[in-house]
Amino acid sequence: MVISSLNSALANEEIIGASLMIKIFGDFKSGNCYKVQLLVSLLALKTEWIDIDILKGDTKTEGFLDLNPNGKIPLLQLDDGRVLSESNAILLYLADQSHLLPSDSFQRAKVFQWLFFEQYSHEPYIAVARFINKYLGLPDSRLADYESKKEGGYKALDIMEQQLSKTQFLVGDIMTVADIALYAYTHVAEDGGFELNRYREINRWINDIERLPNYVAMP
Amino acid sequence: MVISSLNSALANEEIIGASLMIKIFGDFKSGNCYKVQLLVSLLALKTEWIDIDILKGDTKTEGFLDLNPNGKIPLLQLDDGRVLSESNAILLYLADQSHLLPSDSFQRAKVFQWLFFEQYSHEPYIAVARFINKYLGLPDSRLADYESKKEGGYKALDIMEQQLSKTQFLVGDIMTVADIALYAYTHVAEDGGFELNRYREINRWINDIERLPNYVAMP
Repeated sequence: MVISSLNSALANEEIIGASLMIKIFGDFKSGNCYKVQLLVSLLALKTEWIDIDILKGDTKTEGFLDLNPNGKIPLLQLDDGRVLSESNAILLYLADQSHLLPSDSFQRAKVFQWLFFEQYSHEPYIAVARFINKYLGLPDSRLADYESKKEGGYKALDIMEQQLSKTQFLVGDIMTVADIALYAYTHVAEDGGFELNRYREINRWINDIERLPNYVAMP
Repeated sequence: MVISSLNSALANEEIIGASLMIKIFGDFKSGNCYKVQLLVSLLALKTEWIDIDILKGDTKTEGFLDLNPNGKIPLLQLDDGRVLSESNAILLYLADQSHLLPSDSFQRAKVFQWLFFEQYSHEPYIAVARFINKYLGLPDSRLADYESKKEGGYKALDIMEQQLSKTQFLVGDIMTVADIALYAYTHVAEDGGFELNRYREINRWINDIERLPNYVAMP
C-alpha cells in the first residue's frame, strides 16, 4: 500500500512536483536514522531526506517539537502532514506489503518480538555505550555509566548469536526488517567497546546483509 | 486468524483436550503480563495461564531459559511449541484481525509508534520507579536511581496528555492495543511516585478503559 502510493507519487512527480513524497527527518550520526536509510535503499523507495543535527539542538526547536513532542528522530511525514515517529514503527510502515515483512501472522509477530527486543534489551546498552565512547569521548564522569552497559550489551549479543546459529536471519531463513533494525547498532558495536570477533554467527550475518543489492553503509 | 484458530481449538476442546490452547507464562505482579491478561479478557480469548514467580527466580531456570533465552515474561507458547516473547509483540499477535488493531496501514503504524514509545520512553521510567518503590521498599541505595526516573516519567505522561487532549484514545477515537499497553503502568503510576491528578485527560482515558465490557483490574 505504501509502495503503491509511492509509485503513484513517482508517476505523477513531474506533473505535480515532489510535494507528495514522504519526508524523513534524520541525522546520519544516529543508528536509528540509518535503519530507515538502509531500508529505503534496499526497497528502492523514493523519499526526501531532511537533515537534522541533534548535537546542534535541531530536535528541541519549537517547530520540531510541534511535529514530534518527544523530540526524537527519525520522523516520517506524509504529504498530507501526518507524522510517524519511532524508528521501528517507521520500518514497519515502509516495509508493509514488501518481502521484508512476512504475511504469516506468527512470523510477523516474531519480527515485532525482535524489534521490541532491539529497543529494550539492545539499543539502551550498545547504542548508548557507543554514544558515550564515540561522541562524548568517554569522559571520566560517564565511565561508570559506560561500564554498566557491558553486561546488558553482551547479553543481547549472546541472544542474537544463539538465534543466528539456528537460522540464517533472526526470524528464520528470510531477511526481515528485524535484521535491519538489529544490524544498525550491532555492526558498529565495537565503537561501544564490544568485541564482535567472539561472535561467529553475528559476523556471518553482518556479511550476508552487507552483500545485499542496494546495501548502503552507515555514513 | 488467531481468533479463528482459537475458536477451532475451543470447538474441539471437549474432544481433543485443552492441549491446543495458547499458553501464557506470566506473573501477576508485572504490568507487562497484566497487559496480556487485560487483552485476553477484552477479546474473550481462551488461553491457559501458567503462573511464574519472578522474585522466586522462575524465569532464570534452565527450563525457562530454553523457552526464552532473554529470561523475561510474559511468554506465549503455541500448541506446536513455538514461543513468542515481548509483551507488545504478544498483544499485536493476539489482537491481529480484531477491532483493537486497525486495518489501515498508517493507523496501524501509529499503534506501533505508541508501543515502541511505551517500551523506550515510558516503561523504563514509570514501571522501574514503581518497582523500586513498591517492591523494593525504596531503599537508600536506590534513592538516586528512583529520583532519576522522575523527569523521563513526567515527560512520557505529558506526551500522552497532549495526545489525549486531541483524541479519545491514543491513535484516534477508536481504542487499540496501544491503549492497553500504555494503560498497564500509567494507571498505577502513583505507585512510582507520579502525581496523576494533574493529568485531566489521562484520568478521563483511564475511566473510559475501566468502563469497557470484560475489563479486568490489575491483580
